[in-house]
Amino acid sequence: MNEFELIARLTKSLPANKNVVTGAGDDCAVLDVGAVENLLLFKTDAVVEGVHFTRETPPEKIGRKALARCLSDIAAMAGTPVAALVTLGLPEKFEPEFIGKIYDGLNALAEKFGVAIVGGETTTNPGRIFISIALLGTVPRGKQVLRSGAKPGDAIFVTGELGGSLAGRHLEFEPRLKEARWLAKNFSIHAMIDLSDGLAGDLRHVLKASGVGAELLKSAIPVSRAAKSLAREKPPFAAALTDGEDFELLFTVASGGAVKLLDAWKKQFPKLKLSCIGKIVAGDGVILRDKTGAQKLNAHGYVHFT
Amino acid sequence: MNEFELIARLTKSLPANKNVVTGAGDDCAVLDVGAVENLLLFKTDAVVEGVHFTRETPPEKIGRKALARCLSDIAAMAGTPVAALVTLGLPEKFEPEFIGKIYDGLNALAEKFGVAIVGGETTTNPGRIFISIALLGTVPRGKQVLRSGAKPGDAIFVTGELGGSLAGRHLEFEPRLKEARWLAKNFSIHAMIDLSDGLAGDLRHVLKASGVGAELLKSAIPVSRAAKSLAREKPPFAAALTDGEDFELLFTVASGGAVKLLDAWKKQFPKLKLSCIGKIVAGDGVILRDKTGAQKLNAHGYVHFT
Repeated sequence: MNEFELIARLTKSLPANKNVVTGAGDDCAVLDVGAVENLLLFKTDAVVEGVHFTRETPPEKIGRKALARCLSDIAAMAGTPVAALVTLGLPEKFEPEFIGKIYDGLNALAEKFGVAIVGGETTTNPGRIFISIALLGTVPRGKQVLRSGAKPGDAIFVTGELGGSLAGRHLEFEPRLKEARWLAKNFSIHAMIDLSDGLAGDLRHVLKASGVGAELLKSAIPVSRAAKSLAREKPPFAAALTDGEDFELLFTVASGGAVKLLDAWKKQFPKLKLSCIGKIVAGDGVILRDKTGAQKLNAHGYVHFT
Repeated sequence: MNEFELIARLTKSLPANKNVVTGAGDDCAVLDVGAVENLLLFKTDAVVEGVHFTRETPPEKIGRKALARCLSDIAAMAGTPVAALVTLGLPEKFEPEFIGKIYDGLNALAEKFGVAIVGGETTTNPGRIFISIALLGTVPRGKQVLRSGAKPGDAIFVTGELGGSLAGRHLEFEPRLKEARWLAKNFSIHAMIDLSDGLAGDLRHVLKASGVGAELLKSAIPVSRAAKSLAREKPPFAAALTDGEDFELLFTVASGGAVKLLDAWKKQFPKLKLSCIGKIVAGDGVILRDKTGAQKLNAHGYVHFT
């Protein structure tokens, strides 16, 4: 049983109440707590020593990554982060200096994005550091972008370049918060997700939630320089599809608006690449098209338990 | 450096913003996200295998305890829980059945208190199960009860009986949600906390936050039957002061209202003991009074890192 199978089993039937707008299964939960203009976004994410970082990772970057991952999920809903709680599981022996620097990195990123750190907890976790972040955000009522809105004919876009993130970018990526809000404000974004498990895996989450399939154009998929430089270890295109931890945005819009969106994007964010990588089609699964023809894509995203 | 010293260091200077009503240092953070009638309560709490439960603990009770601890913190603010996220750190080898039963216990308690489970995350935590719960609640604007409002002359109350929780009660306690809301609705509660670290330790949190001291009457402190039955291991009175995990409420009210409150309580909650255990005084620290006189209390609550 892998991570996704376990989650599917655990989330089959969860307690709900009248406050729930969108429960488990999207980038964030969406809640209505009676704010006139906004809905709430609610998300947790954990990083674990030996899995997401090592004892050799600079501690400031560990803290930064822990929060940045959650911020990326708020971005994927087109929201604004508000406040976070930090849960620290610490080994019996720990260096207070090291923990202090984890907080320094976390606090610096929080300040950059206007996020309040409003407390948390420390507890014992013998053997390794475990950091769980709980993040609250807001989104204007009705403006949250879910995974489930993709429609046949939609153009599929990704920001930035993909693959090779573990060479360093996974510790330094920028959550695409202002880009996502700009997109949701100015265009009718049908579906959006942040790329944490790899393009191949995360696109499938959108397709499954939306009940559609996709056709990708191989030559349009933006492969990062890091993936290319690691070509001896893994073919760069496979890295771009499956490496995970890119934390770029994938979104879909009606094809009629795609060119206008690309033009406006280039003016608004001239330094960040935006690529139209294919289209949503009826059916299911992913077809990959290159100059030799089309084939069913079997590559999977990163699955934690295999 | 123990847990509280580390927390004091980490929380000395945290990023804040206009949404923060009360940040780190109380039972929950209090946030204003623009809801007309309510403020938000935000809390996380973790339970770790080998620390808060063992492989032998029935899994339903592990899940129940993980959520109940957070619910108790919402109670301590006189709030109502709304929605929770569950973060599961799992060893490489885990029994899906066991994890499913953890969720069963958690979900049953969530349904009892009207809490929605809106998602969460699973990740790897080699060696042990780590469960972190993030909980959102609401409280009517201005009706949140903090630790910092105790005033000299206040009567100090505790619900239930204290000590010996590890004999079983720590897995089965009832979060005092309805009791806390009834108290805050009908009386001017100056300060409140839930007893997680033991009466001696948690009372000190209230005293420090309020800048006051306390005088306790030894004979008035309700010692549980479990603490008495474990007398061979630890003197029952010491257990009541320091065992921790009681998850009862400690609160203070102006002394003039104390008798009226006790009378009303007996009618409202005839099955749950309420004890007036002493009074708030000017100064700091805790004085313990018995028939032989008064002495400064040096006993500390449970401290995770020692």
